Amino acid sequence: MGLRDEIFEQPDVLRRLIDEQWLAIQGIARELRSRNINYVFLTARGTSDHAGLYAKYLWATHNGLPVALAAPSLFSLYQRPPRLVNTLVVGISQSGQSPDIVSVMAEARRQGAPTLAITNAPDSPLSEASDWVIDVSAGPELAVAATKSYTAELAAIALLSIAMDDESGERFAALELVSDYMSQMLALDAEIAQISERYRYMSQCVVLGRGYNYATAYEWALKLKELTYTVAAPYSSADFQHGPVAMVSQGFPVLAAVPQGAVYKDLYRLLSRLKREQEVELLVLSNVTEALDLADRAVALPMDMPEWLSPLVSIVPGQLFCYHLTRAKGLSTESPRMLSKVTKTE
Amino acid sequence: MGLRDEIFEQPDVLRRLIDEQWLAIQGIARELRSRNINYVFLTARGTSDHAGLYAKYLWATHNGLPVALAAPSLFSLYQRPPRLVNTLVVGISQSGQSPDIVSVMAEARRQGAPTLAITNAPDSPLSEASDWVIDVSAGPELAVAATKSYTAELAAIALLSIAMDDESGERFAALELVSDYMSQMLALDAEIAQISERYRYMSQCVVLGRGYNYATAYEWALKLKELTYTVAAPYSSADFQHGPVAMVSQGFPVLAAVPQGAVYKDLYRLLSRLKREQEVELLVLSNVTEALDLADRAVALPMDMPEWLSPLVSIVPGQLFCYHLTRAKGLSTESPRMLSKVTKTE
Repeated sequence: MGLRDEIFEQPDVLRRLIDEQWLAIQGIARELRSRNINYVFLTARGTSDHAGLYAKYLWATHNGLPVALAAPSLFSLYQRPPRLVNTLVVGISQSGQSPDIVSVMAEARRQGAPTLAITNAPDSPLSEASDWVIDVSAGPELAVAATKSYTAELAAIALLSIAMDDESGERFAALELVSDYMSQMLALDAEIAQISERYRYMSQCVVLGRGYNYATAYEWALKLKELTYTVAAPYSSADFQHGPVAMVSQGFPVLAAVPQGAVYKDLYRLLSRLKREQEVELLVLSNVTEALDLADRAVALPMDMPEWLSPLVSIVPGQLFCYHLTRAKGLSTESPRMLSKVTKTE
Repeated sequence: MGLRDEIFEQPDVLRRLIDEQWLAIQGIARELRSRNINYVFLTARGTSDHAGLYAKYLWATHNGLPVALAAPSLFSLYQRPPRLVNTLVVGISQSGQSPDIVSVMAEARRQGAPTLAITNAPDSPLSEASDWVIDVSAGPELAVAATKSYTAELAAIALLSIAMDDESGERFAALELVSDYMSQMLALDAEIAQISERYRYMSQCVVLGRGYNYATAYEWALKLKELTYTVAAPYSSADFQHGPVAMVSQGFPVLAAVPQGAVYKDLYRLLSRLKREQEVELLVLSNVTEALDLADRAVALPMDMPEWLSPLVSIVPGQLFCYHLTRAKGLSTESPRMLSKVTKTE
């Protein structure tokens, strides 16, 4: 078992999660509906924090909930936490062990706020500090770089959103198709390995996404950092234009997740400008011909995938790209330097 | 008038802001206290977004308010905004013109939520869309890279925090000392110019800060990106350990704002580890001897400055460093490529 196996397990993990956890998640959603919840306060680190970015968009667009990402140091180091009124506090963590994350949940409980853990470790300190636990059921994840636990966390977030609001059953049916989309991406393994060759000497890049795929930009960038040691800076297309765009010049690598959807045009407009004015190097994940044509290298995403589910799919070619680039660079795919699987911060 | 003048104007801008706006800000605080506000929802881009990070920490530690940073695309491109109940909506923008920021305020007003603009343009679209306006009174800012408008926004955020909770008047008195601390930093101009020489060929770096100075890490990194075209990646000491730490190796430049305070030990422990295990290059801003001694190059911050006000001071040597590095690299200090002073995103 290693990183590559864990990437390839993702369609199975998703099917298992839906099978095993859907009933429990519906139960949690019923209990949440009986509370007076106006806000979500979310705490996570690293990859799980990027799952939190997805929740920030999905729970707003589909459930009307404003989501705040917590600053854990307010609870741990400063010990001056904010008042959490009518607030659901959510902790997301693969291992459920980082003390700063647990300190947020403990304080929420002290204040009487409802608490929910989304974790791959249902008997961890995080789970013990929470009223409800969604077990993302990804199975043991051994590689230091998280992959299957990330898409499982995304799926748990989507299932909770669906359970809170899906009169027609349409959204649940759409989620059930995602494991097939993931398999389509995994079938591009050899093609993506070939593409990664070109980036053997890349030392820095930017990674763009927006809306639901803001999470994809962050997570893809993190895999590039921890596996390939590339200084990869993630941005939304809007934030990128408020300053960082000055960094790029001829040949600068710009990676982008650009599926069809409400934010597509905004991203495409920016990528065209970067190509036209600075001749950047573009690597694009998209299901729109125009965007694929604009790129120097491109990976085609499934055509019929709805935008709100696209982060579960678009990260898969990103993971494969990082896996192959790590090998091309002769680095460890399993144990990056300075890191261990469980990171405990205060 | 240019970037350097605007950096040097900051002590005067701060004094003027306190003189001219303190009464008005106290009035706003009185009105806010009469509302039932459980939550702050904050929208901003670029430099102003970093002022928002300061608000997220300061208004939590001193006023008990949880602050959510908005995802403007939920309002503009997706047109599926969250419900804003008992929420103060705050927009921060130097120019007050970006349509995505204004769209958040317009929707907040439609929902009946109270709205506050913090801006250098009191007759802008942002101001028109807001119930209250704090004019940060920085005067015309002509250089594309924001400097004096940033510290003025920080000061406005601090003044509002003080007006909401300062029984003893102690915090107001502390803020009145900050313009002198800024002048002490400006007096280090020649020393910082000399230090910047060493980084003439730096193409990438990380910038660390935590707590109140998480904002400093982000803002310093943004100045490095837009002025010196360096790929500068900002992190809290906690987030950095959840993956990105793998990027650094011998000689990798690590810049850090490490003033005395509740998060000092956590940052110092990380910097020591990076020095010991990877022999990184350390440039440190601190008022603690141990941290100054650890660094390859160091700038001494004022000794007696309280942590909650330190972001207004610690960014000043960061700005000077970026100004001089821009000149050392032969780039434009006034008009970085691809940027204009007012950026309008949707």
